[in-house]
Amino acid sequence: MNRLLGCSILLMVFGSGTAFAEEVSQEMFVANNTWMLVAAFLVFLMHLGFASLEAGMTRQKNTVNILFKNTAIMAIGLLTYAAVGFNLMYPGDFSIGEIFGFAGFGIGTDPTGVTSAYNVGYTYWTDFIFQAMFAATCATIVSGAVAERIKLSSFLIFTTIFVAFAYPVIGSWKWGAGWLETQGFHDFAGSTIVHAVGGWAALAGVLLLGPRIGKYTRGKINTIPGHSMPLATIGVFLLWLGWFGFNGGSVLSADPGMVSYVFVTTALAAAAGIMGAMIVSWNVQKKPDLGMVLNGALAGLVGITAGADTVTIMSAIVIGFIAGLLVVASVLAFDRLKIDDPVGAISVHLVCGIWGTLAVGIFSVNPEHTFLTQLIGTAAMGAAGFISALAIFGAIKATIGLRVSKEEEIEGLDNGEHGMDAYPEVILNPVPEPAS
Amino acid sequence: MNRLLGCSILLMVFGSGTAFAEEVSQEMFVANNTWMLVAAFLVFLMHLGFASLEAGMTRQKNTVNILFKNTAIMAIGLLTYAAVGFNLMYPGDFSIGEIFGFAGFGIGTDPTGVTSAYNVGYTYWTDFIFQAMFAATCATIVSGAVAERIKLSSFLIFTTIFVAFAYPVIGSWKWGAGWLETQGFHDFAGSTIVHAVGGWAALAGVLLLGPRIGKYTRGKINTIPGHSMPLATIGVFLLWLGWFGFNGGSVLSADPGMVSYVFVTTALAAAAGIMGAMIVSWNVQKKPDLGMVLNGALAGLVGITAGADTVTIMSAIVIGFIAGLLVVASVLAFDRLKIDDPVGAISVHLVCGIWGTLAVGIFSVNPEHTFLTQLIGTAAMGAAGFISALAIFGAIKATIGLRVSKEEEIEGLDNGEHGMDAYPEVILNPVPEPAS
Amino acid sequence: MNRLLGCSILLMVFGSGTAFAEEVSQEMFVANNTWMLVAAFLVFLMHLGFASLEAGMTRQKNTVNILFKNTAIMAIGLLTYAAVGFNLMYPGDFSIGEIFGFAGFGIGTDPTGVTSAYNVGYTYWTDFIFQAMFAATCATIVSGAVAERIKLSSFLIFTTIFVAFAYPVIGSWKWGAGWLETQGFHDFAGSTIVHAVGGWAALAGVLLLGPRIGKYTRGKINTIPGHSMPLATIGVFLLWLGWFGFNGGSVLSADPGMVSYVFVTTALAAAAGIMGAMIVSWNVQKKPDLGMVLNGALAGLVGITAGADTVTIMSAIVIGFIAGLLVVASVLAFDRLKIDDPVGAISVHLVCGIWGTLAVGIFSVNPEHTFLTQLIGTAAMGAAGFISALAIFGAIKATIGLRVSKEEEIEGLDNGEHGMDAYPEVILNPVPEPAS
Repeated sequence: MNRLLGCSILLMVFGSGTAFAEEVSQEMFVANNTWMLVAAFLVFLMHLGFASLEAGMTRQKNTVNILFKNTAIMAIGLLTYAAVGFNLMYPGDFSIGEIFGFAGFGIGTDPTGVTSAYNVGYTYWTDFIFQAMFAATCATIVSGAVAERIKLSSFLIFTTIFVAFAYPVIGSWKWGAGWLETQGFHDFAGSTIVHAVGGWAALAGVLLLGPRIGKYTRGKINTIPGHSMPLATIGVFLLWLGWFGFNGGSVLSADPGMVSYVFVTTALAAAAGIMGAMIVSWNVQKKPDLGMVLNGALAGLVGITAGADTVTIMSAIVIGFIAGLLVVASVLAFDRLKIDDPVGAISVHLVCGIWGTLAVGIFSVNPEHTFLTQLIGTAAMGAAGFISALAIFGAIKATIGLRVSKEEEIEGLDNGEHGMDAYPEVILNPVPEPAS
Repeated sequence: MNRLLGCSILLMVFGSGTAFAEEVSQEMFVANNTWMLVAAFLVFLMHLGFASLEAGMTRQKNTVNILFKNTAIMAIGLLTYAAVGFNLMYPGDFSIGEIFGFAGFGIGTDPTGVTSAYNVGYTYWTDFIFQAMFAATCATIVSGAVAERIKLSSFLIFTTIFVAFAYPVIGSWKWGAGWLETQGFHDFAGSTIVHAVGGWAALAGVLLLGPRIGKYTRGKINTIPGHSMPLATIGVFLLWLGWFGFNGGSVLSADPGMVSYVFVTTALAAAAGIMGAMIVSWNVQKKPDLGMVLNGALAGLVGITAGADTVTIMSAIVIGFIAGLLVVASVLAFDRLKIDDPVGAISVHLVCGIWGTLAVGIFSVNPEHTFLTQLIGTAAMGAAGFISALAIFGAIKATIGLRVSKEEEIEGLDNGEHGMDAYPEVILNPVPEPAS
Repeated sequence: MNRLLGCSILLMVFGSGTAFAEEVSQEMFVANNTWMLVAAFLVFLMHLGFASLEAGMTRQKNTVNILFKNTAIMAIGLLTYAAVGFNLMYPGDFSIGEIFGFAGFGIGTDPTGVTSAYNVGYTYWTDFIFQAMFAATCATIVSGAVAERIKLSSFLIFTTIFVAFAYPVIGSWKWGAGWLETQGFHDFAGSTIVHAVGGWAALAGVLLLGPRIGKYTRGKINTIPGHSMPLATIGVFLLWLGWFGFNGGSVLSADPGMVSYVFVTTALAAAAGIMGAMIVSWNVQKKPDLGMVLNGALAGLVGITAGADTVTIMSAIVIGFIAGLLVVASVLAFDRLKIDDPVGAISVHLVCGIWGTLAVGIFSVNPEHTFLTQLIGTAAMGAAGFISALAIFGAIKATIGLRVSKEEEIEGLDNGEHGMDAYPEVILNPVPEPAS
């Protein structure tokens, strides 16, 4: 890593496929870095998006718990990423093959902390904060799927270990220049690395936890509606907004052609995801379901995340549209399998994350992106994510337990875990618990 | 359109009135383009603002429907703008006088899509995404006015046709270098092109739909309060935020003097709109009405949109203040005329859009901006917007119908159109339906 | 102030401690200015954050009033800052020692308003709008502490005078190059200038108002829970987001090393504040309180605001963590003292503002920052803020009165001051008023 001394210009080679020269002026560096910081705060806002979406899609009695978890994840994610995650994900050198490396504890070396640039796109600190915002995202995906029944302490322990160790090591295989990077696996902004890995962890949690009380009774699938659709909608729009930073920032510079192109593929895939989900939902469920359409937007966004930089506009629309179809089918299918995911996180992030990753192998304009490599990449990372999450959740289940008591679950986690109500002045009309 | 090859600099002539030279460096181009992308995501966020405001200002039983419409508009707006709208609005050459042109279906030519710069301010893709976000806004304005009684399918059909054809063709008269541009009409960021045109379409819809059941009974105007003032307030603040991109991005570069000046006129006009509405509301209604003050902020913003770049600071404050007075008077006047607009969209966007456009003729520091030209522009575009909306809505009314059944309207569109509740656990205390 | 003529480059000396040369190119200027405008709109969004947080943390019957106040503050803050505040805070020359100066009424000189650059970081207009957004923040801090019992007109009068005169004069002592700047006092983004000064004003208001009816009865401290934890959580996340502009913009340029470093210290201090508050709350209150954790995030943010540019990463974490401990202790302590602050604003902004300012004297890597100077600065500004607020609130109390009637307080200020309900369709389950 080169570092800027005084006012000299930067001298690093920029990544492939751009119009940039091998050197950038200080002005270009400032513009690049500023965009990356904007992208970082947009990804930050995704955490409010997740908190709102998850709270809106679940029952009122568990709202405080969800808001608490998502606030705590932010703190845990940032602090563990500073302590070990960043240096596990970007180890510089690998110590075990190309699968594990660690550059040491903590971040930064300069005593004042104001280190200079270290590549053409951003400073060391920008690199850290952008990646740290991503890391916390991965754990948040899990939060929604295991909501309404997981013990707070158990979830926080899982999050700490998964974000600190599992996510960065898996991510290093690609973004840390590990073996999947060597293999030519392409995952632009993390359809697999962030979303499918988070989705696999969510699936592991759900399998070990089991469904919520009353969800599947006497062979029937009971709908448990979320308590606030405005909150859910706010969440989805904020997530979409954040995605402009998530994908747009993954260009790793303010490269005008590429960043703007990624904005367009991202937006159109989300739009197509809405259309896909709307059409299926209107036909299958007879009336168009807002929850499905919101998940359709997210499905399109997750789907385009792997290939936003390398597919045509029309392909982006097709990828998003198929993701919108997939998410509705998947939500219905998981319910048949009695895999209870209150917010549809597994359908959105796992199913569409895999789809988006494989779609690169189908639609990419770059002939080096092959379906097989994409399949290997998403399978390897998925297996690692699933197994590590299963191990962590399994160890917690075997020791302090994963699930709250039946009484607490029925009463609500807000009272059980926090002794608070989300809306103390609103008289509840609780959805009746079906006989189990 | 010139295109950047390699590292060469851009060679296009920039618009009038700026400090920029005829050539910009690659660094300047990156800075410009980055700002335009920021502006695009701010305008995107306005859609969440509209969704929140409209949902908050209407009844609980229609909340899901409003959220659904605003989510669907986003998808329809982006996809139709990519399919035809962008090339209708920026046709390059006109085929019928200076009033109609079409550059062909779809967007982009480069197979990878990563086209280079095509002017000093932004890339082709930035141009598209910024303008696409605007396009969807125009339809969203209609959504609030026709809320609580329009059939979902009918509204979605209207939106598709209006955003795909009417808005871009009308917009091309000015922003596509058509006849109103030739005439010297000035509408900086769209007081008329976006807001008044949207407002005229809203008026057409309301006239064909008629008022909500129970709104005007036995000669009385019954207040139908919105169900959530926090949601409405969140909406207005997000709209204001988005306006920094809406107006700030309409500079079409990051030109520091002009963008920052536009920020100041925009913010002060909004502030003055609040003051104007607060003063009238406090005096006329005796107690200061939060809804009026929120609409005052929006009124100031709509009012300054045509001239944010060309009036003095003091004029911006006066324009905003008058808009704040106008919006309160207008809301009360439309109620007298039994024109039922649940969120005050016609008052905000149509009345203040016309006011802002004419205000350029009064307050502009540029002597070429005349009142007459401004009047011609807003009248011509208004007539086109109103007539086309009337035709589209009329055709829909004559075929599949515009309005839900009386039973559905009383029960709420959430159940009727979507089979869902926005807040399933909240026991409703419905505003009694006045006898009709 | 130098002004850019044509395409010439800027020639001003930039502030200390940066890698910038004494001249910046036009490209650098554009990049700097763009970042400052982004920072300005992020600080704008903090006002929605405050509105949401305060509304969420108080009772439903006072929600409209809080939303109204926060909307009006925005308008009053911007307009008074344009009229006098900006020129009081940045007087150029002082007329009374280094403690008072005034550069005249109004802003701007150029008739078209499109003035050129006046330093390397931003234009005159960017300077104004960024600082204006800060000014309004100071008054908003007061709003939460005096909520649920202050008369609307009294509060608006206080805000007008405090933001127009007290805040800018006090601020000029440091940011206007007054006597505390001369003394070497360091307050990077305003732990004292904005937060502690606002907190002292809040304390003055609370002391003159007294506690809410039913808060302290028969020697007991009664919990009065806020009505919507989702609203409060949205508020805190938006405030955190805004803080990236509040602190990041206080670099006064897009200096990549410094802005990105400030992002990291800011984010990690907030994360550590969450951890600190969570640990205390979980131990002391037995169950982890969401309100405390949210205030912990804000505590960390306020705490790092004075030194975000001048402490190490580890120090930032320690400062934030201690702020998180302090805020919980402080909330409990103020309740013992019967100082009733519905949202904990005094604990967050005053206590942690002082802590953050003193922490610079402890942790700064710059040996010129001494504890004594920091103590003098925060004491002098605090005294001035407290005394001026006491005088303004005192004069209002002696004339038109500060507090609503007992009947109005019990019924709620929404009905009393506005004749509206925040949620007209929700049947209230009011928290019983304890016998007094």
